[in-house]
Amino acid sequence: MIAADNLQKTTGETNGETKFDLLTYLKERQKLCEAALDEAVPMRYPDKIYEAMRYSLLAGGKRLRPVLCLATCEMTGGTIELAMPTACAVEMVHTMSLIHDDLPAMDNDDYRRGKLTNHKVYGEDIAILAGDGLLAYAFEYIAVNTKNVPCEQVLQVIAHLGRASGAAGLVGGQVVDLESEGKLDTNEETLTYIHNHKTAALLESSVVCGGILAGASSEDLLLLSRYSQNIGLAFQIVDDILDVTSTQEQLGKTAGKDLRAQKVTYPSIWGIEESKNKAQQLISNACAELAPFGEKAQPLIAIAEFITSRDR
Amino acid sequence: MIAADNLQKTTGETNGETKFDLLTYLKERQKLCEAALDEAVPMRYPDKIYEAMRYSLLAGGKRLRPVLCLATCEMTGGTIELAMPTACAVEMVHTMSLIHDDLPAMDNDDYRRGKLTNHKVYGEDIAILAGDGLLAYAFEYIAVNTKNVPCEQVLQVIAHLGRASGAAGLVGGQVVDLESEGKLDTNEETLTYIHNHKTAALLESSVVCGGILAGASSEDLLLLSRYSQNIGLAFQIVDDILDVTSTQEQLGKTAGKDLRAQKVTYPSIWGIEESKNKAQQLISNACAELAPFGEKAQPLIAIAEFITSRDR
Repeated sequence: MIAADNLQKTTGETNGETKFDLLTYLKERQKLCEAALDEAVPMRYPDKIYEAMRYSLLAGGKRLRPVLCLATCEMTGGTIELAMPTACAVEMVHTMSLIHDDLPAMDNDDYRRGKLTNHKVYGEDIAILAGDGLLAYAFEYIAVNTKNVPCEQVLQVIAHLGRASGAAGLVGGQVVDLESEGKLDTNEETLTYIHNHKTAALLESSVVCGGILAGASSEDLLLLSRYSQNIGLAFQIVDDILDVTSTQEQLGKTAGKDLRAQKVTYPSIWGIEESKNKAQQLISNACAELAPFGEKAQPLIAIAEFITSRDR
Repeated sequence: MIAADNLQKTTGETNGETKFDLLTYLKERQKLCEAALDEAVPMRYPDKIYEAMRYSLLAGGKRLRPVLCLATCEMTGGTIELAMPTACAVEMVHTMSLIHDDLPAMDNDDYRRGKLTNHKVYGEDIAILAGDGLLAYAFEYIAVNTKNVPCEQVLQVIAHLGRASGAAGLVGGQVVDLESEGKLDTNEETLTYIHNHKTAALLESSVVCGGILAGASSEDLLLLSRYSQNIGLAFQIVDDILDVTSTQEQLGKTAGKDLRAQKVTYPSIWGIEESKNKAQQLISNACAELAPFGEKAQPLIAIAEFITSRDR
């Protein structure tokens, strides 16, 4: 869940007057997503795997990806209903990547979103399988549950999400991230590759798939792609800043990890202040892409601005 | 690759005269599948993950699932071309499940198909990610590469394969399998659940998806589903028998695992001879389902009979 004081600050700061109430908007959308995710993965036999999948999927979090998916679908002329199965699917893929990244063989993390990580509760074997189960289910869920969308577009969504989830996206980013650990000569190009794939790819897919489901033109999809790549990179820079400046209690996950892992990050290259400026610049660029959508772009613009002001 | 002497024995025994040359048929189909898989996952940056994915995907094996997918598509009026992307995808999912099952946190196996397992070569982190990459790519590959099939049917294939790969299929079977280790009171019902999910689900999906791609009727899909569930269970019984009766050299993977893991198997419940009879009965039942397809069912019948006569 998002801290109210932080959000109201965002809304106030960025819109001058509170013409768009991001706090209420996000709370309402998060609630819709929570309910949809709860319904999407009911308890079934064998209990243990569904319990493990639900443990991480329903562990809170900002629900940024599904909210972006719904918001983009609405902005480009669609409805929440059209996009909800895909919104759930992107959160399933995101959760899979968190469960697998936290494993001892990867980042070896004990806490996530203020709770024990999946493998600390269910064991490594079940955590690996819970991730696999969520990943496979994401595609099944889109294929089975998307209604009132031409099926060519549903196939495009599956292709886009598949690409963002695999070696050309998330997985590729994580591989280069693992390789860069302990290498203090990692250059900015490699760092940008990592963030564009590990973080931006799935954010981009959440946004672009929302547009595809609404039947957005290829020109609009290009704007959406640029918007989301910019917010994706900004999101990761802010993540790296928070890793340095926050405590574990604030983050709900281990803080100071990058320094201990001897990882090059944007703050380690540019320093905190310059990193903050870069993130802000990326957000401005992102929002500029949405100019053609006028007033309708308010939610996406507010979400972009929230990214740089968040404190966890 | 399949041993020639074993195959010729199968062909001779089952058809009396060699009216259908299974050896030539399988060799030709395996070769087509190998080439298609090689092309499906080319080397790209980051090299390490594509290398790891290709290491296991191109490690040989019987290619039973993709061959079944192609054969079913042809039997029900389709072509090899329609089914090849899905045939590749089922092999990607199968390979993912082998890579993850072999991990130290799961079955902890050092050898597979006569080669070191993925994590022994690339490390556990990359092995987990290679599995994730193959799983995500399977769905992307079907969505992007299936041509000349109505997209409703492509979505049905993705839904079917997603179900077979996740907690309602492969993953669920593996969970119950892990739970049953060391429990010598596992009953036959649980054992059948494990095999129906861990083994039969993906075989069934390979067959049924071949039919869906060809536009088979729902009645025919039902016959195909029963055929493949029967051969799936028979396949696993034969696997369990081979685990007892073969050496590591013959299997290309560790032998005698079930006994060491104190696993209940069909041979441990019924003994070797009775298990062989049950497998043979299942194969007969499977072939009986294909009667309505007449002569066209020859490849699927020959493959079913090969399953009980194989020696690895």
